[in-house]
Parts: sequence; C-alpha cells; structure tokens
Amino acid sequence: MTVTTTDLFATHEELLNSALRAITERGYWSAYPESPSPKVYGETAAADGKAAFTALLGKDFPLDQPADEWVSPERSPFGIPLGVRYPRTSPDALIAAAKAALPSWRDAGPQQRAGVCLEILSRLHRRVFELANAVHATTGQAFVMAFQAGGPHALDRALEAVAYGYAEQTRQVGSVVWTKKADTLAKTYHLVPRGIGLVIGCNTFPTWNSWPGLFASLITGNPVLVKPHPGAVLPLAITVQVAREVLAEAGLDPNTVQLAVDTREAPVAKDLALRPEIRLIDFTGSTAFGDWLEDSARQAQVYTEKAGVNTVVVDSTDDFAGMCRNLGFSLTLYSGQMCTTPQNLLIPAGGIETEAGHKSFDEVVDGIAGAVRAITADPAKAVEFTGAIVNDDVVERIAAARKMGDVVLDSAELAHPAYADAVVRTPMIVKVTDGYGSECFGPVTFAVPTESTAQSIDIFRETVGEKGAITAAVYSTDEAVLDAVEQAAMEVGVHLSANLTGGIFVNQSAAFSDFHASGANPAANAALTDGAFVASRFRIVQSRRPAAAA
Amino acid sequence: MTVTTTDLFATHEELLNSALRAITERGYWSAYPESPSPKVYGETAAADGKAAFTALLGKDFPLDQPADEWVSPERSPFGIPLGVRYPRTSPDALIAAAKAALPSWRDAGPQQRAGVCLEILSRLHRRVFELANAVHATTGQAFVMAFQAGGPHALDRALEAVAYGYAEQTRQVGSVVWTKKADTLAKTYHLVPRGIGLVIGCNTFPTWNSWPGLFASLITGNPVLVKPHPGAVLPLAITVQVAREVLAEAGLDPNTVQLAVDTREAPVAKDLALRPEIRLIDFTGSTAFGDWLEDSARQAQVYTEKAGVNTVVVDSTDDFAGMCRNLGFSLTLYSGQMCTTPQNLLIPAGGIETEAGHKSFDEVVDGIAGAVRAITADPAKAVEFTGAIVNDDVVERIAAARKMGDVVLDSAELAHPAYADAVVRTPMIVKVTDGYGSECFGPVTFAVPTESTAQSIDIFRETVGEKGAITAAVYSTDEAVLDAVEQAAMEVGVHLSANLTGGIFVNQSAAFSDFHASGANPAANAALTDGAFVASRFRIVQSRRPAAAA
Repeated sequence: MTVTTTDLFATHEELLNSALRAITERGYWSAYPESPSPKVYGETAAADGKAAFTALLGKDFPLDQPADEWVSPERSPFGIPLGVRYPRTSPDALIAAAKAALPSWRDAGPQQRAGVCLEILSRLHRRVFELANAVHATTGQAFVMAFQAGGPHALDRALEAVAYGYAEQTRQVGSVVWTKKADTLAKTYHLVPRGIGLVIGCNTFPTWNSWPGLFASLITGNPVLVKPHPGAVLPLAITVQVAREVLAEAGLDPNTVQLAVDTREAPVAKDLALRPEIRLIDFTGSTAFGDWLEDSARQAQVYTEKAGVNTVVVDSTDDFAGMCRNLGFSLTLYSGQMCTTPQNLLIPAGGIETEAGHKSFDEVVDGIAGAVRAITADPAKAVEFTGAIVNDDVVERIAAARKMGDVVLDSAELAHPAYADAVVRTPMIVKVTDGYGSECFGPVTFAVPTESTAQSIDIFRETVGEKGAITAAVYSTDEAVLDAVEQAAMEVGVHLSANLTGGIFVNQSAAFSDFHASGANPAANAALTDGAFVASRFRIVQSRRPAAAA
Repeated sequence: MTVTTTDLFATHEELLNSALRAITERGYWSAYPESPSPKVYGETAAADGKAAFTALLGKDFPLDQPADEWVSPERSPFGIPLGVRYPRTSPDALIAAAKAALPSWRDAGPQQRAGVCLEILSRLHRRVFELANAVHATTGQAFVMAFQAGGPHALDRALEAVAYGYAEQTRQVGSVVWTKKADTLAKTYHLVPRGIGLVIGCNTFPTWNSWPGLFASLITGNPVLVKPHPGAVLPLAITVQVAREVLAEAGLDPNTVQLAVDTREAPVAKDLALRPEIRLIDFTGSTAFGDWLEDSARQAQVYTEKAGVNTVVVDSTDDFAGMCRNLGFSLTLYSGQMCTTPQNLLIPAGGIETEAGHKSFDEVVDGIAGAVRAITADPAKAVEFTGAIVNDDVVERIAAARKMGDVVLDSAELAHPAYADAVVRTPMIVKVTDGYGSECFGPVTFAVPTESTAQSIDIFRETVGEKGAITAAVYSTDEAVLDAVEQAAMEVGVHLSANLTGGIFVNQSAAFSDFHASGANPAANAALTDGAFVASRFRIVQSRRPAAAA
C-alpha cells in the first residue's frame, strides 16, 4: 500500500504538536509507554517480539542494500548465539546513493519529513519487543532496561529531536510578500540540508544514543548513513529497515537512510568521516575517537558524546538509608556501564552528619556498599539489574582497579540463570586517594576521602573541568553547600542532581524535561536535545523576485 | 542616575516583542528610521552629530580602560584628519577583566540582558549622526550610506540578533516542577555562556558587520572584547563607550564590553583569538584570515564572513533600461566595496532577448556601463554614491584588472568637492574570459561572455561552489531559466535576487526579512541572523532537587 506523505503528517500532527509543547514546558511527558506490561502492550506482544527477534538469528538480515559481502560482527555479552548476517555496502556506493537521495528528501520539506519520521517511530514502536530483544542481546542490558531505554525512552528522545528540528525549520514563514514603498518582492526561504549525515553508534545504547542524531539530521533534510558499533548492529539494522520501508511506501528514496555496517577487523568509520560529502557526524563513544573526529572531520559539523568523570559530592543527608539505596542502585544498574553512572564519591575523611547522627567515612562507604550487596545478593535477581559485561576491556578494568586502593566492595562474578555464557560482574567500590581523575568505564566506583566538603567541591570543579562529566550529584542538608555545588556545576557545565533518595536516579535523564549532557564540558560537545543540536544541520537559502503588491 | 535592569526591560519590552514577531513573519519592518531627514530626526540632529564627532578629533577618546599606551591607527579615505587616540589595553588585562565580569552578566539572565542591550541600542540611536560621521570618515562611505548602513540598518541587525538570542534562551521555561508517580523534582535550567566573545571588525562596515556578533554574544551572557579594524576604530569605540556607560548605570560590570584596539604594526587579533578563554569569535574580513581563524581557534565557536564571487546570470529581460540602471547602481554604490556587490556578469556571447529586441553581448555590457556613466558623470553627485576608496590595495587592484581583458568602462579618478585628499575611483568593467574565478574586491566588474545561459549557470555553480558568494542575481523572462538558477543557487547555497529593476538592489539585505550570507558556501560559515547564529553561544546546565508535588 502506498501512503502519501501528506497523510503521514496528518496522522502524526497531534503527536508532533504535543511534543512541541513538551519541549517548551518540560514537565513530565512521554509519548511511548515505558512499561512492558501486557496490560499496556497486549498479551502476546512480548512473545511475538521474542519470536520476531529469534526468526532473524543465523540468517541474512533482510535489507535491500548492495552487498560487497555479508558480515556477522556481533557477539552477545549474554552468549546468545546471534549469527545475523548484514550486507556490507562500500563507502562509495553508500555516498553515491545518499547523494542521489538528497534532492527529493530536501524538497519534501519539513512537514512531509516530519510525517515520515514520525511514521518510522510509530513502526519502530510496533516492533518494540523485537527491538528490546535485539538491544538486550547485543548490549548486555537486562531485559526490562533494554526494553525501556532501548525502546520507549529512545523513541521519546527521537521524537524530541524531530520536534526540535521541526520547530527550528518552521520558526520563520516559508515565504512572504515584502513591500517597501514602491517595491514589492516575493521572497522564498528555502531550507537546505548540510549534506549527508553519518551516525556512529555505540555498543551500550545503540538506539537511545543514535536515534537523536539520526532523526535530527533526517528532519532537517539530510540523508543519513547509520554506522552501528560492530557489537550492536541488529537494533540499528531494524531501524534502517523500518526507515527504508516507510520511505519507499511514501514514494521517497529509501537510500535516504542506509546501513553502513562494518567489522572490528575492517572498520569504516574513519574513512566515511573524512569524505567531503559527509557534513554532519553524530558520535557516541570513546574520548579518543570523539576527539579525533572533532579534530579531523573538519568538513563536517561533529556532535560528540564521549567519556567523563561523573562525580558525587557527599556532604550530609537527612535520609542516610535513602541516599545509600539510591546511590547503590545507580552503581548497580547495567553494572555501571552507563555514561551517566557515578564514578567518584567525594566524601569528607572525617565523615558526614546524618539524621541518625555522625557517620564516619567508612560507614558512609559501607552504607553504599551495603545497598549494592542487597541488590546483588540473589544472583537471579541481581542479573535483572546488572545485565552482562559488554566487552573484555571492562573485565580487565575491574582487575586493574582492584590494585588502585583499598577494595571496600569487591566485584563478584555471577552465574546468569538463563545464559550459561553470560559475563556478569557486580559493582566494586575502591577507596583511593589518586588515579580517580580519568574515566574508568564499568562497575568501578572510587570512594575518595577529602579534607572537607569545600575540598570535595574543589576536586569536583577540577576533575569535571579537565575531563568532563555527563552527570553530577550532591547530597547535603545545607542550603549553602547545595548552592555552592550548583554554582560549581554551572561553572564546569555539568547537570546536577541534588539529594536523590527516591525513585529517580542520577543515571536517568527523561526526554522532554532533562537535557542529557550539556556540551559545556569535555565529556560532550552537544546536548540531547537543545536548539544548538539542530540549528546548524540546515541552512536557509533565500530567493526574491519582484511581485505584485499584496 | 542609576537605572535598574528591570526598568530597562520594561522600557524596551514592546520593541523586543515587535522584533520577535518580525523575525518570524519576515515582512518589511524596521525599528530605526533610515531617513536622515530633519523631519525625522529633528532640525539640529545633523549639526549636533557633526559637532559631537568633531569634538572627538585629535584627542584621547574618553574610555575608562587601562592603557599600556594610547594609539591612533586610523587614516581617513577622505583625508579627514582624525587623530583620535585610544587606550590600548593588554590582552592579559582585557581577558582578566572580562573573566571577572562574566558571573554577574551570566546571572543577570536573559530579560535583564535584553533590557541592557536594547538600552545600548537606544543610546547608540541617539548618537546616530555622530556615528554616521565616524563611519563616513573611517570607511570612505558617502554620508547618506554611512548614516543608513552604519546607523539604522546596523541597529536593526543588532536588534535582530538580540531578538534571536532572547528567543533561543527563552524557548523553554526557566524552571519546572516535574512529577512522575511518587517522585517530584524541582528543575532549574541555567543558561550558561560559552565564555568570552571576541568580535573582529572590518574596515568597510564597522558597525553593520560587528554589531550582530557583539549583541548575539552579549544577549546570551558572554562578555565581549571588541577588536576594531585599525582603520575604523571610532564607530566601535563609541559603541563600547555607550555599552560601558549603560552597564555601569545599571549596576553591572562595565568590563562586560571592552575595546581591544590595535595597530597595523602590532596587531592583536591572532593573540586574542588563540587564548583559551575566548570561546566565541565573530569575524568579517579576508578569506585568508577567516580560514586561519576557523582552522586555528579550535577552542572557540568561530563565525566568519569572508570573500566570495558574487555573480549575475544575465539571460533576458523585459526591461532592459531598468536592468542596466539597477545593475549600474549596484556596481557604483561605495565603489563596489560591499561584500554584496556583483563581480561577475555572465552574459551569452550571442547576446540576449529584451523587450526592445535582441541585444548583443557588447550592447548589454555597454548598457550597464552607460548606467554607471550616468551616475558618475557629475563628480559632485558621483561621490555621494561612490564614496572613497578604503585602502591602497583597492587602487592597485584596479590597475591590475586593467590588464586582465578588454576594458569596456575604465575606472576614473574623481576630485572630491569637499575633501581634497579623498581617493575616489569610479567602477570599471572589464570583458574577460578567465581570471574571474576569485574575488577582486573593489570597483572592478568582469563581463564574461558565455556560450549560453546553460553555460552561465554551470559557471555560476562552479565559481560559487568553489569560492563562495554572498549574493547572486539573475535576469530572465523565462520561468524555466529562473527556476534553473534558483535550483543552482539552492545547491551552492547562495541567496538569489531575480529581475531587480526598481529601487531594491542585490547589494541590499534588510534585517528582519533578508538573511545575509547563508553559511552554506565558502564565503561565510554563518548567516545574519538565524537560529544557528545564536544557539551555540550558550549552554543549558540543569539542576534538579526533590520538591513537594505542585
């Protein structure tokens, strides 16, 4: 069945308008239910999604792109046998096809592009359980997290990017009749894309971290090449498949979105990133590669999210148990493999004041360690929070961290009840006095004794100023301390969560309300999502001609 | 008298709201009357402004900045003796003072900053005749042009930048109470400036080209160093003086805006541009220095307007005299020393069709040359259009161009009736078949015979694609040709004017309606003004704390 893009815009216009309101008002709003409950998604949704996922395994992935060869680079952290084969299309072919797709996508205009983008999101949402299985299998995330972060939360972030891009393109009229004294001109404001976008995905959050850049570039008229991390191809292959299907049905060129799969042995990201036709790059991953992109891909606008040193200033609390429980959960979630997981806990060596009296440094660290122990005591339950370890580097980092100081809580290997080959590790907490100034990605937390909260704030300012951070937190009952840390956070440009003791965690950022990364410190040069994330993805090119006065 | 910044916002809020509407609707709108008539500005305004200007000459300019020494780098193209001495403040002192000013300017917030910026514009407007004299004397612009482009049109562009920056900062709420199930958080969205801005002015349009960057950085919370071209300091010295006066009266740090004057012998722009504290640079000038800034000042967001090859495709017309008159005027205005002046006239060698029958190539070029001759026949009238030549390089370029092909219209030296030492040159038109692919800044136009309009469009696409352009024009009675050129203009990213025969010229871009430069071709990486010009000048840094449910 062919749909017209006008139909698609009409279908999704109300959702778009709600999203446009939400990015302005920034209260709680979500377009895609985050509960995987059968009451929400239907009795058979989970089983159907699992079956659809299973049906893809060990086969050629159905994607109509020319293939130099078929590659199968994924290896599941749970040991799930994947064996999906993807067509590897050469960079030349990808770029030629994207160039050919550009004019029709540009000329479609913002309304039609919004219709297509929102239809893609709608169909991805229909396949959300299949996607959740793909995210779970490739990233090592526990299933519920893979469902939420990889499905509804990622869809919300994608919708947010569409809303920002749409708003940016429609903030002025498309044309006007302009009269000054005797002269009347008809003016047209053409929206012109930058060129071809390249989205470079990461292993840990293939959809959540890639979709904003993908949809920000798409809505602003740029064809996009999607280059997944070789460890997490399937979620983005499904994404590209859905996008191409919607484009084709709408009578547009499916090559507006293409998969640029590669392997660890023959990576393609550097080659693509330096092509003159690539004018936009969205990257999530290591600081080394992100810095290389920023320095080298000078022909492109480069949006990066790299590594940072997320820091917690612990000064005092009126809910010691709540603080420990909240931080313990933050450390345990996905075994600390979130870019938002706290790494450094800065705690006065002399201890802190709480509602239950003074707690020594060791008591504070033990309290947090105890919370982690409570969550991870039962392996069968633990794995539903920790998931699995995404790669061998993380395992090695745990071993190295063990030698950095006094191990307060050691990382343990757990057997996964469902997956015999899963690599599962619980969080470790190490008391250190140095070596904590760089990112140690994985289930490693450093407890750092400081002379005082004032010194904690100095260290916070120094480490985040130098190495950046995606998140920061503070616990204090003292308004002056809260203000001082908030002031420092503004100065070093990191988002701050204060006194979280309930069901919200420093790791979490909610689309339409929380900005993710700030672009104001070395951990990232962009934020999800603000005006700056979309405004430079297109240009306005104007034409004017004499006309009859209106 | 001390004013509060709240008063200032209230005073100017209606103007701001009108500007916010104007950037959306983009019909004709201007906040500052462009006619220097006594009916508009009062009977004594012109004489008072002239007297205020004259009173500044040969003296230390009253600016309360620490001076290493006092310098007097200006030399008037009209030979007007200036001799104004400016305090040269060291880069270290400038940066230290700007850093100290940052927190109070940041904390003032967008409303208070808008009030201050609009009060500065209001006071600059009150000194508009003084400014016009300063622009006239330093740039060589004829007085009316110096008044209009240097005064009201520049004020409009500055107000436009304030409006964009204000809109960008207030597109989301400043704070919100967010509730999701049992959790309620109070969230604050802090607007955090990038750092210190550096504005590098040009000799030809010291206010028009510098104010947008200055006010875009200011409104978004960044202190700014204003580095004028050594040839055109006075207009920006007055600007900085007014800004500091308003800041001080409003109880803010005057060092939020500082003058960074230098001399040709000891330039300071490179030194300042590479300082890590400089996070925003706005530059208008040569391609060489603009490219150097883009490549070298990697710590900063760099906004450049450089050189380009402005092109006119002449295909056919139904108003031959109107076309010739319009183009002739465009070439004559400020002796072709506008970044928007056409350089290449692409005309089929076989001639064109007009309402008066076929015109040969030579007849077309003669028609345009005749229009220039008519405007420049009477030297006393001519200088009110041509003004004077801004520097010796332009004079040398005229001599060099004379050897490039057949001189259809030679450039003539004119005696200026008011200024004996003025260097005045009328436009020249040279028929060439090569050498027209790079910018030849000044009163030099190349008439290029092409095989056909189709080839003209190819040449247009090639030269603008390679070297960039700020403007382009087409004359045709054929809708297919107009569409083909518009398509090509979109592809190479240049604004296009079609069939201008009346009182609007390709050189002119009107604030609130026309975008100036596009950022989509090599002539400039930014546009005046769009969302991209302001969105990256600040960041949002968020904080969140548990709160009682709303």
